[in-house]
Amino acid sequence: MHPHVFDRAIALTATGDGCYTGATSPAYANMVGPFGGITAATLLNAVLQHPALLGEPLSLTVNFCAAVADGAFTVSAQPVRTNRSTQHWVLALTQPDAQGDPATVATASVVTAARRETWSVDDEPMPAVASPAELPPYAVPSPVEWIRRYEMRPLDGAIPHTWDGRTSDSLTRLWMRDAAPRPLDLCGLAALADVFFPRIWLRRATRVPAGTVSMTVYFHAGSAQLAEVGHGWVLGQARAQAFRNGFFDQTALLWNEAGHLLCSSHQVVYYKE
Amino acid sequence: MHPHVFDRAIALTATGDGCYTGATSPAYANMVGPFGGITAATLLNAVLQHPALLGEPLSLTVNFCAAVADGAFTVSAQPVRTNRSTQHWVLALTQPDAQGDPATVATASVVTAARRETWSVDDEPMPAVASPAELPPYAVPSPVEWIRRYEMRPLDGAIPHTWDGRTSDSLTRLWMRDAAPRPLDLCGLAALADVFFPRIWLRRATRVPAGTVSMTVYFHAGSAQLAEVGHGWVLGQARAQAFRNGFFDQTALLWNEAGHLLCSSHQVVYYKE
Repeated sequence: MHPHVFDRAIALTATGDGCYTGATSPAYANMVGPFGGITAATLLNAVLQHPALLGEPLSLTVNFCAAVADGAFTVSAQPVRTNRSTQHWVLALTQPDAQGDPATVATASVVTAARRETWSVDDEPMPAVASPAELPPYAVPSPVEWIRRYEMRPLDGAIPHTWDGRTSDSLTRLWMRDAAPRPLDLCGLAALADVFFPRIWLRRATRVPAGTVSMTVYFHAGSAQLAEVGHGWVLGQARAQAFRNGFFDQTALLWNEAGHLLCSSHQVVYYKE
Repeated sequence: MHPHVFDRAIALTATGDGCYTGATSPAYANMVGPFGGITAATLLNAVLQHPALLGEPLSLTVNFCAAVADGAFTVSAQPVRTNRSTQHWVLALTQPDAQGDPATVATASVVTAARRETWSVDDEPMPAVASPAELPPYAVPSPVEWIRRYEMRPLDGAIPHTWDGRTSDSLTRLWMRDAAPRPLDLCGLAALADVFFPRIWLRRATRVPAGTVSMTVYFHAGSAQLAEVGHGWVLGQARAQAFRNGFFDQTALLWNEAGHLLCSSHQVVYYKE
């Protein structure tokens, strides 16, 4: 069977000592460089493929240092501390600079954990929204390629149709899933956490240059729970808390259709003007 | 003038190449090892003291890999990418292991930025609460030393007086500041972002072992705005979004008394049972 376009995009070849080579995929191209979510998923994939891996991802932080250039890149994933039930990873994604020396394009840290069943409760109930089946198909008005890799059904705060500078709140809610069927997994979830268009566009109905600087995902679901989602829909909710002098923060939550919180995610995003 | 106990605790001696030595302070001792906030502030301090620093902190992520042992430690802070207006840092805090080899006790990443004035707005208004002057002094019922370094005036969700297992929500709101007067700054704010006791204690009124695994701070205020706070009060709000199989997440906001959002902060915390 031909691998899914997502799996081809995050594919890595191990070269030893926690190093991997990969390449950007035109299928996930953003305005400049690839979709940040595919970079986050690729970094996470390096940890998941590492022979020393303990447990499953608990947290992932990716710092986007520069636009990833089209072409090959190297990922280094090093376990810097392994405890009884948690493991700490330090990662870097590099590409050759003009002189051919490796330049850091992204850094990341991952914590993995061997989790045990405990008392558990969700304190962020899924909002009462229309089910995806009740919503019409929707084509996001965006020229970027990666958007077409996802099926999206906005509920609130869709990308503005008119850039009239009218201010609103920054809340977006939408159903989403891969456009080509693919069972949800940890890398797929990491990418979905970065799906939301810049909050500043919604808040000001003004399209200004913007890009994620740092992003964190806290995984509440493990691979078994994600497998149960299959190719099901995920409800995503994102909003900003403050826009200040060139940067805003975004806080996001992702639930499965049954209403279980899959992850919480946060990012800080550059914007111009 | 004798330096403030906080400044003594986060003090570092540069040894070259972005490396620093420091030592834990008994004044900020937690149950096991030091208060996580003082470790976060110490790591940030290494960046702030680095001669290559560009701008001011925008985001800080600290991964707590193991308890910091009482005594000396080494911090390494390396600028891995410097752009026109942002800079990316990778940090590690190490202590000798049983064989005398450096073992990683904490890792961190920091993004700094030279910020310019832009269109700005706060979307998380400070909740309407009693002013600190209206509240009586309060002694937190805790045996740990670092708690005494802060003056705290709880509004909602104070640490339970009876551990009766009664479930409640996980929201805490409190006014806080250094117990000994000290003007607020970036390191001081990073520490305050970790002041909240584990949400699981409040949610379940059950005192179980718990400890922060990873913590992120997004700085909305710069040093000039923090200086205006002086020794003023900071309103902190924290709540959990999900408790799941040994880990919960916490999302927090900190405002100055004038109602400006100073930072947003997130963490994922281990808990037992």
